[in-house]
Amino acid sequence: MSRLVRLLAGLLVAASSLWTAAEAASSTPATPTAILAAAPTADWVAIDPADLLVVDLQGGARVVIALADAFAPIHVANMRRLAHEHWYDELAVERVQDNYVTQWGDPDGKKRLPGDVVQTPPAEYERPAAGLQLQPLPYRDTYAPEVGVVSAFPVAKQGGSAWLTHCYGMVGVGRDLTPDTGSGAELYAVIGQPIRALDRNIALVGRVVGGMEALSSLPRGTGDLGFYTEAGQRRSIRQVRLGSDLPAAEQPRLQRLRPDSPTYRAWAQARANRQDSFFLRPAGAVDVCNVLPPVRSQPQ
Amino acid sequence: MSRLVRLLAGLLVAASSLWTAAEAASSTPATPTAILAAAPTADWVAIDPADLLVVDLQGGARVVIALADAFAPIHVANMRRLAHEHWYDELAVERVQDNYVTQWGDPDGKKRLPGDVVQTPPAEYERPAAGLQLQPLPYRDTYAPEVGVVSAFPVAKQGGSAWLTHCYGMVGVGRDLTPDTGSGAELYAVIGQPIRALDRNIALVGRVVGGMEALSSLPRGTGDLGFYTEAGQRRSIRQVRLGSDLPAAEQPRLQRLRPDSPTYRAWAQARANRQDSFFLRPAGAVDVCNVLPPVRSQPQ
Repeated sequence: MSRLVRLLAGLLVAASSLWTAAEAASSTPATPTAILAAAPTADWVAIDPADLLVVDLQGGARVVIALADAFAPIHVANMRRLAHEHWYDELAVERVQDNYVTQWGDPDGKKRLPGDVVQTPPAEYERPAAGLQLQPLPYRDTYAPEVGVVSAFPVAKQGGSAWLTHCYGMVGVGRDLTPDTGSGAELYAVIGQPIRALDRNIALVGRVVGGMEALSSLPRGTGDLGFYTEAGQRRSIRQVRLGSDLPAAEQPRLQRLRPDSPTYRAWAQARANRQDSFFLRPAGAVDVCNVLPPVRSQPQ
Repeated sequence: MSRLVRLLAGLLVAASSLWTAAEAASSTPATPTAILAAAPTADWVAIDPADLLVVDLQGGARVVIALADAFAPIHVANMRRLAHEHWYDELAVERVQDNYVTQWGDPDGKKRLPGDVVQTPPAEYERPAAGLQLQPLPYRDTYAPEVGVVSAFPVAKQGGSAWLTHCYGMVGVGRDLTPDTGSGAELYAVIGQPIRALDRNIALVGRVVGGMEALSSLPRGTGDLGFYTEAGQRRSIRQVRLGSDLPAAEQPRLQRLRPDSPTYRAWAQARANRQDSFFLRPAGAVDVCNVLPPVRSQPQ
């Protein structure tokens, strides 16, 4: 290309190996990418394959979801059972609503839930903040007095209560009207603007940490709420497995950046204060949804 | 479907004709959709086809962009000239980065800009707040002391200065490193999480008000920053026209909800305080990116 116009030039890392997290805290403006590249191994932690739900779509695309047992234990336990019993296999993506959600499940309602699944779980929409290792973010949030991250997840907090927030890529449990809370048989992922109005109104159960584009780039449904109008438009799901139920060679080997690490703090601060060559005016703040803890493949 | 699990049941409008904007202000919880459906004609205003950029992709999809002359007049004037002179025709979508942007332009940098285009416009990243009819929103924003909407656009304000914000669907001008501001030959649309860190660092020039799914559902590029690695992967642009340059029968006939109307205020308030049958706990606030003034086709 004769004149390569590139947005967010900050992602192009020059001399990233020169940076360390410690230097990033100095007055020299390191890019977020450079800070990540310089993270010591100890700042990354492996994600147990048992905590990953692996969704293989027909056609070969794979979506990997980190499960948030700490926030919705009964819903997530249901999902573990459904995956373990192969219940999700051959279901389909039935709804893709632009700037909203991609939803998958049993569009024709033909399958009965296994007996060991809790059919009507309690409303796991929030939980006590106590016991969570919250890395708080020092920025205003529109919806909550306090926000931060726990493990790989975005979290809001008010008083003694904490809950997951509907950022891009977060996965929730489709449900009918209250008091139904959804069993975990129907799931959705946020594919646009965060839907924070749904926070504390629905159970969030995880975050897509791999293959998000397989959900976000699907054709939008043309029916009400983005439902596909014909069964043939649905993308079939080949299988859904817990990572630990896959053969060893097929298990996802992922790492997440520890929120309590110096690298995470430096990275989030740099995301809030971009001062590299592309930026004229650092924002001075960052939305919790823009600083989800990075996840990467385990280095070879 | 035997059991139709539907998210955001509030979008399903029961008896919407019973609601009026005035009633919405009462204690009865109207859905945002019901409030819109009951809007009097006077609360909608036609968008002049001369203020719309119509992007026709190969294959038939049409994207319609409302131009924001009030915020980036020189960049938008360039775009008007480029469209009027058919300069954009046969360019292509060259970059789709998940949860970031879809970008289109002249990927091979082969085309020279016409002589009447300002090659290096000034940095139209913010403007005086005076003279804008800002409908403020009474909610906290992470990035700015004040936010609201002007015409069809989301706006932030600090002191005497105002700027457009990088919400889903907003359109900006690709540029190289500072002091380059981009000519308007390369454009992008936000297809994920708002990129508010780019606010005041790049020229925003409009908002996609039709056909957004044609940009957001494209296959993601696998190169750095989501660039397509092979020319054959690019989606070609058949033509780009100002709405007013199209034959009358082909011109988009759109209306936007007036931000200073009772309906807009009631709608935004309802979006911030969902109390319909799906919601247990109203958020009490809403992000500016979640209350972009609605745009609809002109009723027949």
